Amino acid sequence: MTDPDVRASIMRGTYEALCEHGYTELTAQDIADRTDKSKSLLFYHYDSKEDLLADFLEFLFERFDERVAETRDLPPVERLAVFVDWFLYGPEENDRQSFHVAMLELRTQAPYNEAFRKKLRKSDDQLREVLEEILREGLEAGEFSEHDLEETAALLIAAFDGARIRQLTIGRDEYLEQVRAATATWMFDDLLAEGASFPADRDPGTVPDEADTHRRLLVDFDTDEGSESDAERTEGCE
Amino acid sequence: MTDPDVRASIMRGTYEALCEHGYTELTAQDIADRTDKSKSLLFYHYDSKEDLLADFLEFLFERFDERVAETRDLPPVERLAVFVDWFLYGPEENDRQSFHVAMLELRTQAPYNEAFRKKLRKSDDQLREVLEEILREGLEAGEFSEHDLEETAALLIAAFDGARIRQLTIGRDEYLEQVRAATATWMFDDLLAEGASFPADRDPGTVPDEADTHRRLLVDFDTDEGSESDAERTEGCE
Repeated sequence: MTDPDVRASIMRGTYEALCEHGYTELTAQDIADRTDKSKSLLFYHYDSKEDLLADFLEFLFERFDERVAETRDLPPVERLAVFVDWFLYGPEENDRQSFHVAMLELRTQAPYNEAFRKKLRKSDDQLREVLEEILREGLEAGEFSEHDLEETAALLIAAFDGARIRQLTIGRDEYLEQVRAATATWMFDDLLAEGASFPADRDPGTVPDEADTHRRLLVDFDTDEGSESDAERTEGCE
Repeated sequence: MTDPDVRASIMRGTYEALCEHGYTELTAQDIADRTDKSKSLLFYHYDSKEDLLADFLEFLFERFDERVAETRDLPPVERLAVFVDWFLYGPEENDRQSFHVAMLELRTQAPYNEAFRKKLRKSDDQLREVLEEILREGLEAGEFSEHDLEETAALLIAAFDGARIRQLTIGRDEYLEQVRAATATWMFDDLLAEGASFPADRDPGTVPDEADTHRRLLVDFDTDEGSESDAERTEGCE
């Protein structure tokens, strides 16, 4: 896959098809129907549907990397708050719930699918590295108190992932706010060094009024190249 | 389903078939093949494969209830440690991993399947009630310090579920021990009231040497009625 425009078009079609059909029922034709390409052209670029979806995971990985880069100039306390918002957005953002459900279906196929497993491990590494980087920076800046970076990162990722999964699978929206509040009480309050504080508008224990730019992390297909009509098409995927 | 022996036989067959085939690829014939019943007899008892699997979720729910009842006489600190072991067992128990992967696949179908969603919500309620009961008892006994029971229960369940899911889907066993250790550091150390402590052999931050009776919570089919050969058949499901 060398032509970035072709790839972007297929990635967008994949996103929309996942929203519409979920993962388990998804066919290559569903993806082709949402691009201006034929199904046989998809198989010119990819060996199989699984190969295409593995590249879709890579695509999400790249986009996450870009988003992370955008936060690198923020102070550690603020970066941590942004990280929390990336995961515990909503529940008013549930219009994109169907995409996340599909991604969860895909994740449960990783034990049977080496290509998925490899990409998801890479993504897990990336997530942990980013969070550990934030925690390390905070420690070095004297904003966070001493703690085991790896264990803390593991707990935060597991808790946010678990909350999201229970919200997605059984519609228990309360997990998002309760886990946010409990994380603030049990962890972030203790994490802050003497004299350090979260900016008032970025307290990770409070659901932000306005965090659209952060919430859309994994599903924002409005890239620099994206036209207005592309953006509208993506909006339609609910 | 009125005959408990018939139901037990079908439930065991379902368990074994889930271990062998996962959820996505599972057929009613796979289940029938693991009982002495025909596929048509399964459909005499159940309206559909989904109906049967919903009853399987109910069956797991009942077994969890029995296990919870067995812990009711323990002191709250010990009950909490047992609760942690129920979730963060292993990774040496990975021989039963395939069953838990299948259950995870099933969970991701809940947004599309009302019967599954209903049973999984009931199970979520049960889990939270048990944990809140343990926390409340500890508070009343002066063993735990003041905290928000609901939020703390939500965080613990989300963290344990998230750790297990990352371990199951991408084989990152380290999540189990890291989340166990981080929970002990960030939460349990603060949760203990002045002067209270976990029994030395039941510190929830330490992986227990011997906790088989707890670990097998969801997959122990060696009921009182179970014959030795039944137990052997279950053991074979790895």
